Amino acid sequence: MTERINHQWRLAARPVGTFKPSDFTWVEQPVPELQDGEVLVRNQYLSLDPTNRAWASFDTYLPAVEINEVMRGGGIGVVEESRNDKFPVGTHVQGMFGWQEYVVLKSKEVQVLPVNPAIPITAYFGLFGHIGLTAYYGLLDIGLPKAGETLVVSTAAGAVGSLVGQIGKIVGCRVVGLTGSDEKCEWITKTLGFDAAINYKTEKVAKALKTHCPNGIDIYFDNVGGEILDTVLGQINLKARIVLCGLISQYNATEPVPGPYNFVQLLMKRARIEGFIVLDYLNRTDEAMAKLGAWFLEGKIKYRVDVVEGLEQAPLAVNRLFDGSNQGKLIVKVSE
Amino acid sequence: MTERINHQWRLAARPVGTFKPSDFTWVEQPVPELQDGEVLVRNQYLSLDPTNRAWASFDTYLPAVEINEVMRGGGIGVVEESRNDKFPVGTHVQGMFGWQEYVVLKSKEVQVLPVNPAIPITAYFGLFGHIGLTAYYGLLDIGLPKAGETLVVSTAAGAVGSLVGQIGKIVGCRVVGLTGSDEKCEWITKTLGFDAAINYKTEKVAKALKTHCPNGIDIYFDNVGGEILDTVLGQINLKARIVLCGLISQYNATEPVPGPYNFVQLLMKRARIEGFIVLDYLNRTDEAMAKLGAWFLEGKIKYRVDVVEGLEQAPLAVNRLFDGSNQGKLIVKVSE
Repeated sequence: MTERINHQWRLAARPVGTFKPSDFTWVEQPVPELQDGEVLVRNQYLSLDPTNRAWASFDTYLPAVEINEVMRGGGIGVVEESRNDKFPVGTHVQGMFGWQEYVVLKSKEVQVLPVNPAIPITAYFGLFGHIGLTAYYGLLDIGLPKAGETLVVSTAAGAVGSLVGQIGKIVGCRVVGLTGSDEKCEWITKTLGFDAAINYKTEKVAKALKTHCPNGIDIYFDNVGGEILDTVLGQINLKARIVLCGLISQYNATEPVPGPYNFVQLLMKRARIEGFIVLDYLNRTDEAMAKLGAWFLEGKIKYRVDVVEGLEQAPLAVNRLFDGSNQGKLIVKVSE
Repeated sequence: MTERINHQWRLAARPVGTFKPSDFTWVEQPVPELQDGEVLVRNQYLSLDPTNRAWASFDTYLPAVEINEVMRGGGIGVVEESRNDKFPVGTHVQGMFGWQEYVVLKSKEVQVLPVNPAIPITAYFGLFGHIGLTAYYGLLDIGLPKAGETLVVSTAAGAVGSLVGQIGKIVGCRVVGLTGSDEKCEWITKTLGFDAAINYKTEKVAKALKTHCPNGIDIYFDNVGGEILDTVLGQINLKARIVLCGLISQYNATEPVPGPYNFVQLLMKRARIEGFIVLDYLNRTDEAMAKLGAWFLEGKIKYRVDVVEGLEQAPLAVNRLFDGSNQGKLIVKVSE
């Protein structure tokens, strides 16, 4: 058998502000030999997520990636060699592969992907997996939406936000999305069925929220934090629920970031802010995947992916999550 | 019948920073004649609370006190004249009497006080009423304490905080209180049974919390906001609950106040901050009062009151809530 060569992006430095190419090193090395029970997976698609930026800098819900370690990231791939009868060559799998072409996994690190011809493989990034779990449980378990309530979603054309809004519509909420371009506004209203969209780069957010949320805001699903969270806090209803799913606006910060100035509204409105991380729901994956799959096949939920070609592109592509230039779930195609 | 003279403190100006004498006007006027169904109440004790400062400045859960209106405040008193058979002369009552010696109340504004010789009248301020309700439901319904968890309480020697800590002990928590003098630290540990006390004026709060909360912080009952909230956020456990019951540190602020810099910890620790205001629990008064009364008679709960003599003192006395010089629930004795 010819020796396989693995390419990897390793973290070279703690990033300051957005990622720079010098924060990573491109490493080439032979794929190690398998031990009994292990499989060799060829990475096909790599998921890029805002949390990559946090992982590279500080301990979060996972320890920070170490300097010189392969950059952490989730992937989908296929078993190329196997010394484990449970996972024969050709099995489709997902897991934390890292930013590399090949990964050797032990038995307990392998998660087999169900194969359904009606569901494209990219759905495992854009609809299922951590994206779908995040939207499903973040909205339903933490946001506790009721029919007739008003739901506001930030990064509404993003992978999580676009699902949150669609699930909100299924539940019977009025759904208003915030996003950063007219094209995205059109996509979430015309294609996804949001009731209204606000382009936060060109519109006055406070005024637009007043217009589109005439009965106030009951639930805010937030991926951003910062000024928009502050503006929303100024318009929440009594007993509002704010799902804090991400704080994109501050992952690149180089100075301490204050919390919202309208913090006092939590008290005045007896409202709740609650942090949510999908890792706490991994043992409830089945329920969410079954529902999301059914809604997808019924045409009630749509998703889109933004595919970048080639692992070499990952360090620059990941910054598109922070300037808003991605259109849908951002993934890197690593191999066929 | 001789004409009765009523003295009142009316709000003269929106306060800037702490209250100044010039923010109020001392008004003398005859008590109006009663209409059918009304009673005349002589105010005996007036409750001073941090929320007075908020009411004087801005709309909260209640509209701001209008300029030239009698300052809002809760009181306990006795019916002196009655044109309502349900409330004969001599009935002990409580309600929103305002900062004045006499108040005319309509039937629906009268709340009769139960009279129990084993319970002193000041208990209706220090233990029952809004103080007791706030501590009871704020801790139990919003904080959701479980035996073995660690509860931290700010303004721990204050009216609400001292009850919260004692209820926390009854539930089986480790209880650590923050307060502003060594005398108060001694009172909450030696007399009230808190596990530890921190003098936030003389100790390094972050270090002291680490010492006294070796297993991290599960519940924080906060009346203060500001730096201490930030410090606590740096030491919360997964799924921590923060009960936001007050924001004393910012009621006197003259500039916008940022939220906590450790706001991101809510996300990292999947923690919750929830605002709480006792008004939402008025329909559940009976349960709380029955429990608190039983605990008091069993000696499991203590309270103390700090009595200021004379309604004239109210405008200056209320500031003691903000410099921490009160010792227990602050009340003004208006008449015998």
